[in-house]
Amino acid sequence: MEVFNEIAGLKKQLGTHRSNKQSIGLVPTMGYLHEGHAKLLEASIKKTDITVCSIFVNPVQFNNPEDLENYPQSIVQDLKMLEHLGVDYVFCPSGDEMYPLKPVVLFEFENIGNIMEGQWRPGHFSGVGLIVSKLLNIVQPDMAFFGEKDLQQLILMKRMVLDLNMDVNIVGVPTLREESGLALSSRNARLSDEEKKYAATIFKALSMAKAILMHSGDIQNAKEEARKILDGVAEVEPEYIEIVDPESFEKLSAFQSSAAICIAAKVGSVRLIDNIII
Amino acid sequence: MEVFNEIAGLKKQLGTHRSNKQSIGLVPTMGYLHEGHAKLLEASIKKTDITVCSIFVNPVQFNNPEDLENYPQSIVQDLKMLEHLGVDYVFCPSGDEMYPLKPVVLFEFENIGNIMEGQWRPGHFSGVGLIVSKLLNIVQPDMAFFGEKDLQQLILMKRMVLDLNMDVNIVGVPTLREESGLALSSRNARLSDEEKKYAATIFKALSMAKAILMHSGDIQNAKEEARKILDGVAEVEPEYIEIVDPESFEKLSAFQSSAAICIAAKVGSVRLIDNIII
Repeated sequence: MEVFNEIAGLKKQLGTHRSNKQSIGLVPTMGYLHEGHAKLLEASIKKTDITVCSIFVNPVQFNNPEDLENYPQSIVQDLKMLEHLGVDYVFCPSGDEMYPLKPVVLFEFENIGNIMEGQWRPGHFSGVGLIVSKLLNIVQPDMAFFGEKDLQQLILMKRMVLDLNMDVNIVGVPTLREESGLALSSRNARLSDEEKKYAATIFKALSMAKAILMHSGDIQNAKEEARKILDGVAEVEPEYIEIVDPESFEKLSAFQSSAAICIAAKVGSVRLIDNIII
Repeated sequence: MEVFNEIAGLKKQLGTHRSNKQSIGLVPTMGYLHEGHAKLLEASIKKTDITVCSIFVNPVQFNNPEDLENYPQSIVQDLKMLEHLGVDYVFCPSGDEMYPLKPVVLFEFENIGNIMEGQWRPGHFSGVGLIVSKLLNIVQPDMAFFGEKDLQQLILMKRMVLDLNMDVNIVGVPTLREESGLALSSRNARLSDEEKKYAATIFKALSMAKAILMHSGDIQNAKEEARKILDGVAEVEPEYIEIVDPESFEKLSAFQSSAAICIAAKVGSVRLIDNIII
């Protein structure tokens, strides 16, 4: 495994693989890697010849400076895990390497970009679009892997590469959960053991909404019952409960055959999101 | 010369050239080609192995539907000219080929994107950013050629590929002029002979401003005298006269060694822009 801090070196190295007709997979991360990331990396290692993992806490996608400051980091452990998994290259650029100048280009995402995470974290997807575009243009992967936990991000990245005719296949990888149902997330590191128990309520609420949808198809009722479960735990502060089409991400008024149930909630000071796709 | 209407066919063809280590040049146009375009194409033919000219009147960059409807087209003559110049490939996609879905991604350009053309044609650069990104991702050229007549566009495209780490060299090509000084533009086709004479006033105003800058460096005076010349012809309706740094495109308050003098004006119903770089 080789670690690159600079764009030029990484590009040169990947150029030789491209000349050899080897396919390239990219797993973009913000570090503090957990088993959920391992799933993404394993998918890339399985499906492509060369796997690149990027570790970069992108300041541009944090609307809340405190959230950025508190974002956990653990580069030594991360590198150990990547080596162990069999990743080929790690790209860990500095902020100056990625943003030598304050960017003039801003991405906006209409419709699907303005609901849910777009509404609660203004500017978030704009920053995600920018950094993912940059990473895709630097690495020029055949496939890039994103977790289904950040479902709206996954859908937006699929639309972005379609809209921009980027030559890459965006692959979604299912969410990994603790036994309690809590979705794995780097942010979980900031939860106490007590808070982790409260946080598992999110999955319970999602599961209840799913059961209702499967049984009666009643969207409104599914949302209400999920809300009741969240409201039953004082330490959980829900931001939204939405049921959307898992492809178009449009809010559903009636349940047909597929849906994504999405929840964002704060547990203590930690903001968590999760979803179930039916 | 081969003409492609579909993305897949063009990409396949260009892939073989890329495998053969041949460099690719792109000249993106909206058709109705004139000698100014020929200069861009000649630059590409000289500097790269394979030249692609795209012809696509991009609906997304027209803020004014009437302007889009009146935009002149002449595909038969265009193809003759391209063949004669020795262009390798022409890419003429349909609207549906380029926009199978209404795009969700919107580009915005901060600072430099909000003055002059950005201010007078809201949404224009957003559409330019989108279509140029798409064309760059489809063609994946080593160099892309843009006219200096649309200087703000040229500067923004240079910043865009920098901000997004796109692997392409954006090359500016000097403006071609009629004997009167009128800058060549597809829009000139909509001017009567009489109006063409009036339109030449724009270059006179630019030349006066340049002379003043070279002589006294007085920005305010240069703008005022240019304005007087434009105001002297009733048929010319100026929108703006600006003097900016030709690299950063920031408005200059004092003249150092370099400047771009930029004018936008309407002559009859036709909106024209022009500039002189010192």
